Amino acid sequence: MQIKEIRSSTKDKSREPYSPLLSYLRFMDQLFSHQQLSSFAKAIFLKIGCSEKDAETATESLLCADLRGVDSHGVARLSGYVRLWETQRLNASPAMKVIHETLSTAVVDGDAGPGLVVAPYAMQVAIDKAKNVGTGWVSVQNSTHFGIAGHHAMQALKHDMIGIVMTNASALVAPTFSKQKMLGTNPIAVAIPAGKEQPFVADFATTTAANGKLEILQRKNKPVPRGWVQDKHGDSSTNAHELKEGGSLLPLGGNREGSSHKGYMLGSIVDIFSAVLSGANFGPWVPPFPAYLPMPAGMPGKGIGHFFGAMRIDAFRPAADFKDDMDKWIQAFKNSEPINEAQRVIIPGEPESVIEEERRMNGIPLQLSVVDDLEKLGEKFGVDLK
Amino acid sequence: MQIKEIRSSTKDKSREPYSPLLSYLRFMDQLFSHQQLSSFAKAIFLKIGCSEKDAETATESLLCADLRGVDSHGVARLSGYVRLWETQRLNASPAMKVIHETLSTAVVDGDAGPGLVVAPYAMQVAIDKAKNVGTGWVSVQNSTHFGIAGHHAMQALKHDMIGIVMTNASALVAPTFSKQKMLGTNPIAVAIPAGKEQPFVADFATTTAANGKLEILQRKNKPVPRGWVQDKHGDSSTNAHELKEGGSLLPLGGNREGSSHKGYMLGSIVDIFSAVLSGANFGPWVPPFPAYLPMPAGMPGKGIGHFFGAMRIDAFRPAADFKDDMDKWIQAFKNSEPINEAQRVIIPGEPESVIEEERRMNGIPLQLSVVDDLEKLGEKFGVDLK
Repeated sequence: MQIKEIRSSTKDKSREPYSPLLSYLRFMDQLFSHQQLSSFAKAIFLKIGCSEKDAETATESLLCADLRGVDSHGVARLSGYVRLWETQRLNASPAMKVIHETLSTAVVDGDAGPGLVVAPYAMQVAIDKAKNVGTGWVSVQNSTHFGIAGHHAMQALKHDMIGIVMTNASALVAPTFSKQKMLGTNPIAVAIPAGKEQPFVADFATTTAANGKLEILQRKNKPVPRGWVQDKHGDSSTNAHELKEGGSLLPLGGNREGSSHKGYMLGSIVDIFSAVLSGANFGPWVPPFPAYLPMPAGMPGKGIGHFFGAMRIDAFRPAADFKDDMDKWIQAFKNSEPINEAQRVIIPGEPESVIEEERRMNGIPLQLSVVDDLEKLGEKFGVDLK
Repeated sequence: MQIKEIRSSTKDKSREPYSPLLSYLRFMDQLFSHQQLSSFAKAIFLKIGCSEKDAETATESLLCADLRGVDSHGVARLSGYVRLWETQRLNASPAMKVIHETLSTAVVDGDAGPGLVVAPYAMQVAIDKAKNVGTGWVSVQNSTHFGIAGHHAMQALKHDMIGIVMTNASALVAPTFSKQKMLGTNPIAVAIPAGKEQPFVADFATTTAANGKLEILQRKNKPVPRGWVQDKHGDSSTNAHELKEGGSLLPLGGNREGSSHKGYMLGSIVDIFSAVLSGANFGPWVPPFPAYLPMPAGMPGKGIGHFFGAMRIDAFRPAADFKDDMDKWIQAFKNSEPINEAQRVIIPGEPESVIEEERRMNGIPLQLSVVDDLEKLGEKFGVDLK
């Protein structure tokens, strides 16, 4: 195994686009090439019975997170997928299919396959429909965790389409006025093509902070800012371990004065589009990712739910005109008056694309605990991490 | 003119569904029937040259805000529309038309008409397309303020469709890291049918607080909570008058720790879908509602922009199955464990539908300053408020 000390990621980057992720994800310490991790992940997916094509698709979905700096959703989760397969909660060779459709819509049954494979399949259905009638909208039942939403939304870009992706997830979030976990972190991703500028790629949990950010502060034993979590009584808390003690994540907005009801509404919309439209499980009944957790009792649907949209730009106006205006939009925002000269306004997706460029060139840093986890996985299946 | 003291609106409602609006909108003091205000508004729209049909449509859009308790967007704005017409920024007899379309999409040119009329026209185009191909998506250029987004989204409900509505607005909001006003409060509304339960109707600005809430605290000379506004230097402020002093509203999230970049992303998506897709003005170039404010220099598009979507429920699954699951969703959330027994979880749209029922029965309370304004408007056009 090649191990390099990573120095470049910890140097001062105050003049680079700010990412809320970047500031937390710089204490990793082993570097792997994209190729190394891809080969390893693909080999593992093949070992559990994925087809060649599905193993490739799943690997690409998974690695996109590592490349873009969303380390919580990359190879760090590979052993989690394997455990879901071991407990027969994940079908490695799913027969995904469209079970209901119109010219612009479809419902896909993911056949309990890896969301990493189901999502690209469903997004392709949306894209194909958009080619025909301008837009395509696909709700998915019977799926599992699909990695990062942004990866799937970005599939639309190469077709000069806007990509929209949502997914529900197991309940960690209490609605405003409640102390019960009822919603997942339910992210929304929207990818929009531009001309000379990089595309606009928003990808965010509808909570104040995604669970991954919390986990990082847990490992550091640091308090979390107010508005991220509440305790089991529904009181505001700064304890990073609150979720393990009966507490919950808070919707974007954090509290009533901060309009947490808006984050709760957003998370609810994601849940309904992803699961009530498709017949998947919703609200407190969404199956958990960790295979050691019990499945919710009385589940009303099948698996977890996703929602995909693709809108052809030229279904609205000539793509070149749109892209010119997007460039103008992006330039205006980049050049808007900064509060601090050292930090200009960031365009959604900018930090991730900077990280991707760097990591493709210099490698992907992994935490020691993740490396250990991957090595154990490799030993179990006779695959070298190299 | 009939004037009644309003007492019912100020009584203790602590056991009723909480609305962030309600708590601020209870110091009004004159009561009018829905019919009185409708007749008056319609007469004014006719006087400025609207057709009979458009005057009715505009009145219905406007009054929906008063009925649902969003008083900042109802008849309180009627004189504002008239001033836009007087300064020739609003065309009272627009020839609205579809200027680009596919089977599931359209761009509508609002011909500078009242958004109150343009929006229902465009929403109908979306609904008609959804009837044919499952969904319809319409981006609008060359429009003006359309009242409350929720009203237009709710048009989809009677067709067993989900309605989605967005609009941009003149810039009051600074993106994360900026001190410049670049985005409007850019609301999102989503209306979703249910079965036995009331429909789910979310309608919210993508800022921590809508401008209307700020205005109420201005009149009371009270400070605003942290996270609502920043001063002209970009520093956090509690001054309700900050916008008049060069400050700006903050995106949902309020500050970096609260993830204001997510509110900024949401507001940006609304701006791009509404205006870059349609060829309307975007970002800092969106024309203001107050007619006394200058138009932005170098506007790249036409008027303000909106975005409408309609998705037929049965384009995804049988409507009855969907509605059963929506009822189950709503009941689960209503019955989730409350932090305080006196306040259960609210379903989006619930407080507004309670207010609408009460106001249809007991009348619509208006502030004295709004009554004065309407009386002056009535005198100018020879229309009695009665």
